[in-house]
Amino acid sequence: MGRLYHRSSKKTGLPPGTVVHVGAQKAEPVRINVIDYDTERFSEKQVSSVTKTAPCRESPTVTWINVDGVHDPQVIHKLAETFGIHPLVAEDVASTSQRAKAEDFGDYVFVVLRMIRWDQEKSQIDSEQVSIVLGQNFVITFQEHPGDVFDSVRERIRQSRGRVRSEKADYLAYALIDVIVDNYFAVLEALGERIEMLEGELVNHPSRAMLHELHRLKREVLLLRKSVWPVREIIGVLERAPEILVARSTMPFLRDVYDHSIRVAETIETFRDLLTGMLDIYLSSVGNRSNDIMRILTMMMSIFVPLTFIAGLYGMNFQYMPELSWHWGYYASLGVMAAVALVMLLFFRKRGWI
Amino acid sequence: MGRLYHRSSKKTGLPPGTVVHVGAQKAEPVRINVIDYDTERFSEKQVSSVTKTAPCRESPTVTWINVDGVHDPQVIHKLAETFGIHPLVAEDVASTSQRAKAEDFGDYVFVVLRMIRWDQEKSQIDSEQVSIVLGQNFVITFQEHPGDVFDSVRERIRQSRGRVRSEKADYLAYALIDVIVDNYFAVLEALGERIEMLEGELVNHPSRAMLHELHRLKREVLLLRKSVWPVREIIGVLERAPEILVARSTMPFLRDVYDHSIRVAETIETFRDLLTGMLDIYLSSVGNRSNDIMRILTMMMSIFVPLTFIAGLYGMNFQYMPELSWHWGYYASLGVMAAVALVMLLFFRKRGWI
Amino acid sequence: MGRLYHRSSKKTGLPPGTVVHVGAQKAEPVRINVIDYDTERFSEKQVSSVTKTAPCRESPTVTWINVDGVHDPQVIHKLAETFGIHPLVAEDVASTSQRAKAEDFGDYVFVVLRMIRWDQEKSQIDSEQVSIVLGQNFVITFQEHPGDVFDSVRERIRQSRGRVRSEKADYLAYALIDVIVDNYFAVLEALGERIEMLEGELVNHPSRAMLHELHRLKREVLLLRKSVWPVREIIGVLERAPEILVARSTMPFLRDVYDHSIRVAETIETFRDLLTGMLDIYLSSVGNRSNDIMRILTMMMSIFVPLTFIAGLYGMNFQYMPELSWHWGYYASLGVMAAVALVMLLFFRKRGWI
Amino acid sequence: MGRLYHRSSKKTGLPPGTVVHVGAQKAEPVRINVIDYDTERFSEKQVSSVTKTAPCRESPTVTWINVDGVHDPQVIHKLAETFGIHPLVAEDVASTSQRAKAEDFGDYVFVVLRMIRWDQEKSQIDSEQVSIVLGQNFVITFQEHPGDVFDSVRERIRQSRGRVRSEKADYLAYALIDVIVDNYFAVLEALGERIEMLEGELVNHPSRAMLHELHRLKREVLLLRKSVWPVREIIGVLERAPEILVARSTMPFLRDVYDHSIRVAETIETFRDLLTGMLDIYLSSVGNRSNDIMRILTMMMSIFVPLTFIAGLYGMNFQYMPELSWHWGYYASLGVMAAVALVMLLFFRKRGWI
Amino acid sequence: MGRLYHRSSKKTGLPPGTVVHVGAQKAEPVRINVIDYDTERFSEKQVSSVTKTAPCRESPTVTWINVDGVHDPQVIHKLAETFGIHPLVAEDVASTSQRAKAEDFGDYVFVVLRMIRWDQEKSQIDSEQVSIVLGQNFVITFQEHPGDVFDSVRERIRQSRGRVRSEKADYLAYALIDVIVDNYFAVLEALGERIEMLEGELVNHPSRAMLHELHRLKREVLLLRKSVWPVREIIGVLERAPEILVARSTMPFLRDVYDHSIRVAETIETFRDLLTGMLDIYLSSVGNRSNDIMRILTMMMSIFVPLTFIAGLYGMNFQYMPELSWHWGYYASLGVMAAVALVMLLFFRKRGWI
Repeated sequence: MGRLYHRSSKKTGLPPGTVVHVGAQKAEPVRINVIDYDTERFSEKQVSSVTKTAPCRESPTVTWINVDGVHDPQVIHKLAETFGIHPLVAEDVASTSQRAKAEDFGDYVFVVLRMIRWDQEKSQIDSEQVSIVLGQNFVITFQEHPGDVFDSVRERIRQSRGRVRSEKADYLAYALIDVIVDNYFAVLEALGERIEMLEGELVNHPSRAMLHELHRLKREVLLLRKSVWPVREIIGVLERAPEILVARSTMPFLRDVYDHSIRVAETIETFRDLLTGMLDIYLSSVGNRSNDIMRILTMMMSIFVPLTFIAGLYGMNFQYMPELSWHWGYYASLGVMAAVALVMLLFFRKRGWI
Repeated sequence: MGRLYHRSSKKTGLPPGTVVHVGAQKAEPVRINVIDYDTERFSEKQVSSVTKTAPCRESPTVTWINVDGVHDPQVIHKLAETFGIHPLVAEDVASTSQRAKAEDFGDYVFVVLRMIRWDQEKSQIDSEQVSIVLGQNFVITFQEHPGDVFDSVRERIRQSRGRVRSEKADYLAYALIDVIVDNYFAVLEALGERIEMLEGELVNHPSRAMLHELHRLKREVLLLRKSVWPVREIIGVLERAPEILVARSTMPFLRDVYDHSIRVAETIETFRDLLTGMLDIYLSSVGNRSNDIMRILTMMMSIFVPLTFIAGLYGMNFQYMPELSWHWGYYASLGVMAAVALVMLLFFRKRGWI
Repeated sequence: MGRLYHRSSKKTGLPPGTVVHVGAQKAEPVRINVIDYDTERFSEKQVSSVTKTAPCRESPTVTWINVDGVHDPQVIHKLAETFGIHPLVAEDVASTSQRAKAEDFGDYVFVVLRMIRWDQEKSQIDSEQVSIVLGQNFVITFQEHPGDVFDSVRERIRQSRGRVRSEKADYLAYALIDVIVDNYFAVLEALGERIEMLEGELVNHPSRAMLHELHRLKREVLLLRKSVWPVREIIGVLERAPEILVARSTMPFLRDVYDHSIRVAETIETFRDLLTGMLDIYLSSVGNRSNDIMRILTMMMSIFVPLTFIAGLYGMNFQYMPELSWHWGYYASLGVMAAVALVMLLFFRKRGWI
Repeated sequence: MGRLYHRSSKKTGLPPGTVVHVGAQKAEPVRINVIDYDTERFSEKQVSSVTKTAPCRESPTVTWINVDGVHDPQVIHKLAETFGIHPLVAEDVASTSQRAKAEDFGDYVFVVLRMIRWDQEKSQIDSEQVSIVLGQNFVITFQEHPGDVFDSVRERIRQSRGRVRSEKADYLAYALIDVIVDNYFAVLEALGERIEMLEGELVNHPSRAMLHELHRLKREVLLLRKSVWPVREIIGVLERAPEILVARSTMPFLRDVYDHSIRVAETIETFRDLLTGMLDIYLSSVGNRSNDIMRILTMMMSIFVPLTFIAGLYGMNFQYMPELSWHWGYYASLGVMAAVALVMLLFFRKRGWI
Repeated sequence: MGRLYHRSSKKTGLPPGTVVHVGAQKAEPVRINVIDYDTERFSEKQVSSVTKTAPCRESPTVTWINVDGVHDPQVIHKLAETFGIHPLVAEDVASTSQRAKAEDFGDYVFVVLRMIRWDQEKSQIDSEQVSIVLGQNFVITFQEHPGDVFDSVRERIRQSRGRVRSEKADYLAYALIDVIVDNYFAVLEALGERIEMLEGELVNHPSRAMLHELHRLKREVLLLRKSVWPVREIIGVLERAPEILVARSTMPFLRDVYDHSIRVAETIETFRDLLTGMLDIYLSSVGNRSNDIMRILTMMMSIFVPLTFIAGLYGMNFQYMPELSWHWGYYASLGVMAAVALVMLLFFRKRGWI
């Protein structure tokens, strides 16, 4: 459940703007990757120290600085200083339990998103916080772990495919957000398949374990929802950002992402409705099973208890019981019993029980 | 379930504006049909190549270009270029899992709608994406498959019935949207009949299969809802479009479609309420059936177990049991048994069980 | 159910503005009644042809034209032409499945309302569409059937009671809407009485039939709700209408109707809450009944099965069973049985079962 | 239920503005009490006729006219005329089923509130309509019955405690509304205590009667809610009233009442949540009880039916059954029976049933 | 439950602005602590009388007056007078059942918050009202009890850590609100752990006690929610406050608190969803248990009742029953019985019951 609410209490009481890493502790060094391009030029390098990124701020080219790892407060603090970023932003970058949001600081926009991925093995959602700072001619991205969904964007820049090389930093930021949101669809598919499978099983042989699986899937859907809902607001903030940061020509693209995020949100609501419907099916199947069990009991008893009574009747020890001395008495009694059983069986068949 | 959420992950990572067909693959060629008219003139032809549609853009007549099939990116790409349409629009046209929406691009409005149809055989809803581009003097429509609900509009144009020939492109666009929304009523009727039928069955003999039917119908209603809800926004976008695209005189007609879409939406909500009510009936019928079963069990047992006890009593082998040697002992015991059974029956009748 | 959603698909594909009667077919001729008045003058006549109403449009007096029956497209079409009414309005008047709404056309306002009535016999709601066109000095009302709730207004005009004679057409329109909304209270009362009655029955002896009655009442409430909710919007449209149509002095009266409609809507929500609460009572009563049944079963079995066991014990045929030869053995065994039965009865009494 | 929806149909068809008393009929005369004060002067008298109140309208002092009883249309009509009040307001005052609301008529504001009181005996809410007309230098209050919650305000005026004597009519109106809203807390407490008590009982020994009590309390909460919700709007109307009626200095006080009304509303929502939770507890307790009953049945049967079978076995009359002639056969069979019973008991203990 | 709604009725009828302590009565004296600082200077002292705080109002330094204990009306009244605070504010400070809110009085802002703490022993939430008055160069805080969460802020001021010493009173107010909101996370964690634990237990062995624990936790969540929801509005009021009170540079910090409060609110909603899901699991577990019980009953009966019947059959006393005299009759009957039992067992295994 730790994934549904975040433990941030360890920061309680610190002065705001203190960069403290909230998340799993790690030892590997932070990697900084710098891509610098315009229509003609292109360079890509891994830098060892933050100070080497300083010239990018002034250059007219678009610079994309990607930071893998937010567990080193030093690095974040320095980058923030170099690019004139508010200490609170630096703090948010380091504490990895932020909700998705966007804030407009005038000369840059700060965006937090969750990058999600379906963990096939545990069949649950993995999520990672991605922070994006969009300045006039630079984009800085912070990720918790190496490995991301941005490779397609990198390829497009390297090979100058699409518009990305001819556009400004805002388009790059858009492309990154777009690729994150697009990835939600992959998770939706995986989740949808699990739900579909569970639905099939539920119809065929419902079991107690499925209820827990249902509960678990509901949680995953809740988790996904928390990541997706704020995307609309984020786009809204970007659309209202000063034109120097987000150009008018980027608007249709932002609206496109907005649209995707609505589609994701709608599918999530559909999943919730389906899961609720499946719970109804499960609950009624419990009731139905109880009916099945009782039907068997009732049939067994209704047949055998009258027979037992008849047998008991002729087991009585009265001295004067004429039937007992009849020659065919035994067979007659067997016949009566068979008739009673048959009548009961016909009755049950008429009721549709067998 | 595939119809409730759409698989779009195959597009993840491509540059935006890439026209990729998302949907079932098809081999047949794309058909382009051009209708050109004003109050006096009328022409209708099937063109082989997109380039032949170029002159329409400049001509003062109203041109309706209908494209059957969106699986050929070339055709869509070229049309978009010819008519100055944004690449993102072309992308949306080709990927057939868009949600219904309208976007105003200044010199044209882009509308996406779902054209739905009740598949009597599978008793489910078939839906197809229709994209409409409304320019100043042209309307371009894209459909996934040949065959549509637009024949009545075509007839009206051909025979110059109604206002369509004396109005501009905006009226044509309205007429097409109107006919799509009107068609929702037909699907509502089919769905309403299924619900009505199911309701009747449910009252008379509820069965487990009905629960699944209920669940299935709920899904169809969800699907329909997703198609219908955005229609209001679409009308809103059209109403706020520049007057050069949508004339003031078309407003009352748009308001009329708006009205219809609200009626459809309301009926859908009513269906949801009914289906929820039917689930309650089903669930309580499961409980009632369990009561019926137990009632039978209780009656059988309450009658026969005391009788069996009496029989067992006189089956005891005590040496001194005066009743056993009475001459009428056997008959007396039978009488007692009959009395007990009668008392039980009277008790059950008083309780209203029989 | 037909009353909850309307079948309008027969109009699909017709050019908009085509006046087609949607509703039950009828043969009787349409009746047109014209009341013309100002502070001093008053005339009332039944006219045979629409053309005779034409002069009313110009006269400075207030004219109320009431049309009984909307199944004759000719009449509606002609009236629309005579009074300069938009073809879409004429179409809406004729198709009797409109939702309640108001539209402002600049020199007239078009209002659609549902006039409802409680059908005591079928104990369900009857509803009829009333269309009102409010012009500067005329009001035209269209009803589906003869017979309405307007008699009190007619009387007030004839006898010059209240303000109606000294006010303009807007006050007349208000008076008509007011009387329709006031009538909702009567239906609410009838419905409330049914709910009250059902509630009493439910508490005393719940039965399966009541569940269906509950479901049915829920539907009636849904139906009523659909009629009432839009009344607020209608008042809103009237309040924003040009002052030449709706005078400032009429505003307090409109606000009064608004108030009434909110009261109706609130009562309906209360009814929904009550019906939901009654469903809970019903469902829990099913569970309680099942407990009652099982209690009887458990008591019968718990008493008689041990007794039968004891009887069976002394029915065994072992050669050496000392109790069998005791003189008081039989009576002792009877005593033990009585003791066992008593213990069970005391146990059940302690549990509060008897 | 009559208290949840109001019967107003008797007014249907009357011209608007007709003052008709809707409510229980009464014979006692209407009492009119006039308090007149400013910082220095103070007078309080009971007047016999409405005409004697006329001078108050012009005097610069603040006048509070309190009318006990709204069943005499004459009185209300005359007061309305004297103080220039709209006939619709007079109508609303007399019909005691208004919802709480406020209307701004330019030179006076009309406020309707419900004054509620907990009837300890019937343990239900009593409510009474209070109408307040706030003019520039007068406040008129109408109550259904003598006896109210205003005594504390009267005392404050008489003894010149607090600000009331040094403020205008708006402050008086505020003080009256405040005291009515404050009184809601007392009802909340009484209701809260009932809920608390019921909750305790429900946990200890749930019974069918509690379900009805639950249903009843839910209704009271609904009733209370209908009275409280509109208070916010009322404050809103007062805040937007012309400054000549409501002074700026009164705003903080109004905001205070607003705050209280939100607190009442929140507590009501909490009550609803609690009652819903209690319903869940009740329903699950029904299920639990059914489990208890079945557990007893299952234990009785599982122990005694095998024993009965063993007894039956040795009751068979086969000629060759070696056990029957064993000397210790009887005791051995008793031992086997005891062993079976013990095994069953151990099994049930392991399951936690005993 | 007393903690969910507050008893305020004792104040009913008092003139507004009367400072009455609502809450538990206490005897200890009120403690007043004054911290006075700017970038260079710092002083901290405990004052014995309110009058000694008067000079702070005029001094240019930032003054933080912390009052522990609101049960002495005198103190609050005097402070209010000294700092020019509205009597209604003083009243709200003393009555400790206010809802969280903020009010802008032009030259100061009044904020009420609830400071919460998890009581590990009773495993419930403790809450205390904190009132904050933010003036131009002073902050006054009122707490119910000594002991608070502000120590970290005090330390920061004393040791001049962070920005607090170089900022104005608005930053101090922000820091206090921030630390209160941050503390909510600690309570969320404790609550989350309880929920997590309960969830584990529920899956493994659901019991009736858990239902009550569930109900109790739901209440705590409701309580927490009431404290947290208004925080957003509070921030909104502060953001709209005049710039002289809240500087532009403080905005990003306020937005940060806003963000945190949304995260708390979202986690609370998640908890509600989880608790609802757990109730479903509990309810279905009741149904499942009832199935388990009935399964045991049905198996026992289905095996032993037929056997008992067979035994009863050969216990009949007919004179002519050939089987009885067969030599292997007894063993044959035992074999038949074993076969019947085996068939039943196989049937149950096939059904998956054993």
